[in-house]
Amino acid sequence: MPVPPREYGGTERIVHALTQELVARGHDVTLFAAAGSETSAELHSSSPAPLWESGADALAAHAIEIEDMVGRSAEFDVIHSHLDVLPWLAGDRYQAPLVTTMHGRLDLPDQRKVLARFRERPLVSISDAQRKPVDDLHLNWRATVHHGLDLERIYHLGKGDKGYLAFVSRLTPEKAPHLAIDVAIKAEMRIVVAGKVPDEDRDYYESKVKPLMDNPLVEWAGELDDGGKDEVIGGAVGFIVPIQWDEPFGLAFIEALATGTPVISMARGSLPELMESGRHGFLCSSEDELIAACHKLGEIDRAECRRWVLERFSPSRMAAGYEAVYSGLIAGRRAAS
Amino acid sequence: MPVPPREYGGTERIVHALTQELVARGHDVTLFAAAGSETSAELHSSSPAPLWESGADALAAHAIEIEDMVGRSAEFDVIHSHLDVLPWLAGDRYQAPLVTTMHGRLDLPDQRKVLARFRERPLVSISDAQRKPVDDLHLNWRATVHHGLDLERIYHLGKGDKGYLAFVSRLTPEKAPHLAIDVAIKAEMRIVVAGKVPDEDRDYYESKVKPLMDNPLVEWAGELDDGGKDEVIGGAVGFIVPIQWDEPFGLAFIEALATGTPVISMARGSLPELMESGRHGFLCSSEDELIAACHKLGEIDRAECRRWVLERFSPSRMAAGYEAVYSGLIAGRRAAS
Repeated sequence: MPVPPREYGGTERIVHALTQELVARGHDVTLFAAAGSETSAELHSSSPAPLWESGADALAAHAIEIEDMVGRSAEFDVIHSHLDVLPWLAGDRYQAPLVTTMHGRLDLPDQRKVLARFRERPLVSISDAQRKPVDDLHLNWRATVHHGLDLERIYHLGKGDKGYLAFVSRLTPEKAPHLAIDVAIKAEMRIVVAGKVPDEDRDYYESKVKPLMDNPLVEWAGELDDGGKDEVIGGAVGFIVPIQWDEPFGLAFIEALATGTPVISMARGSLPELMESGRHGFLCSSEDELIAACHKLGEIDRAECRRWVLERFSPSRMAAGYEAVYSGLIAGRRAAS
Repeated sequence: MPVPPREYGGTERIVHALTQELVARGHDVTLFAAAGSETSAELHSSSPAPLWESGADALAAHAIEIEDMVGRSAEFDVIHSHLDVLPWLAGDRYQAPLVTTMHGRLDLPDQRKVLARFRERPLVSISDAQRKPVDDLHLNWRATVHHGLDLERIYHLGKGDKGYLAFVSRLTPEKAPHLAIDVAIKAEMRIVVAGKVPDEDRDYYESKVKPLMDNPLVEWAGELDDGGKDEVIGGAVGFIVPIQWDEPFGLAFIEALATGTPVISMARGSLPELMESGRHGFLCSSEDELIAACHKLGEIDRAECRRWVLERFSPSRMAAGYEAVYSGLIAGRRAAS
């Protein structure tokens, strides 16, 4: 996928924001990414395949990319990989230190095993919560660097004056739109639902979500682009995505907060790192708490929500985090040689 | 997936057959495969993931497997990989020559590019037809080695006395069950249809195949195991799977011929290498030819069909083909050192 992505693609958005910021800070950056990527860095395009795609064809594309990266590695001080385990197979063929940001969940059995096998690899986590399932492995974590996005440019402080709750996310069991709608109905509030139904979650949608959509309190808004999200979420009194998994980093939540809209979700995964419960919304442990939270949204200062994420999750803060990681790697390499 | 596989898994069946035969011929073989694999070789199990699975978790499993293989590589004279491009990322970290059997189609755009990028890698094709899409790349092909299976043990010479045609394969557009059924109906013959409908081909099945299943000439036999295939196909007067793609090797066809049942298919892909049209069935270019072929099945000698595949596609013939490849690699390495 080109960077930034035209549709969904959290990793690409982050890679784009980081690259732009590093270039702005005076670094000499080469971005290995799909043809068509917009970037102020030098673009090295091995193929048109997206970062997140799997399957034989994408694997082939990444193999070429990695081989290219090995070939050019002597040109760089540091190589920063977002390709998970794949580049590790090249062993010590890189002529520069390689650091990997893990973008996904780390609780799958083979994920654990592969991390244990490559435990010397320098890693960056995207939240402290992400590391928990592999805490016992004592991996070579260099830092947690929270994501940063140009939230200030994309999102505006909304008035939150439309009176509805908003669920804007993929419609999957992990994001639990069925629960969000149920909470809204029980709280006797309107809810606007928007997002994509992934093919593999069609059954979930048909059986658990669709039956609730006929309720007069529920409005379907389809799939939204950045502008649409800004408008729909900015008008909401609360953003409710009651996650049912330990999401390593929920970009949707910081985007919502950037419009000033307080978040209602569960107290799990990275959520407690993204916001303070009671100050930027409410992190709950049960459906009753979620319902109660809907009635306390007036306590939250919308301007503070926006201020918080603009400061905490900015590209410059992210870039500074990575600069420290890069410096450590370069110093470590000098000391070793 | 364990080797041999419990369900579908052509590559695993071949790897199993080859390994057993190489051990029987006195070679010292270590099989890197999923835990639970049955083999007379030494089993090295890095993980329980099947060879053919993709996705992050399987990738992680294969990364461990490859890392293990690199670590043990000095123990071996030759490493024979069935993992496509993945092990190539390890570059020259192997302390033994690595040869790769390509098991899939080579006509996808990124597949072409990755083969061009790694053009020095020694390769084995499973048919001459498989190489055609990349003929112009002048890759390092060492041989074509046709698959071999223990057909003699699994399949028996059937009488072909039940009067029906048989379609036994996955129900996908590439295998064209809709065409097979249409041909049978037009030839006024009964047809037994068996096989799995993959999830991704559910739409195809509903729109193109299911409407034909009500015809009184059509009988649905569900999914069959080896014993079921032996019985159903062995009773058929003809085995009709009119492929709509250049299948690099059609195991189903040699299995059908092992029961003595003549094959009706299209003259494309590996088919002309698997059988002689007119002697073991009929390879056609149009639906009219397929229909005409149904009426000429009586001309085919069933015992000759079985004799042909038992000789041509035996494990020993396959192993001899690979022994020649291995010898060439070992001699090349000696000459280079």
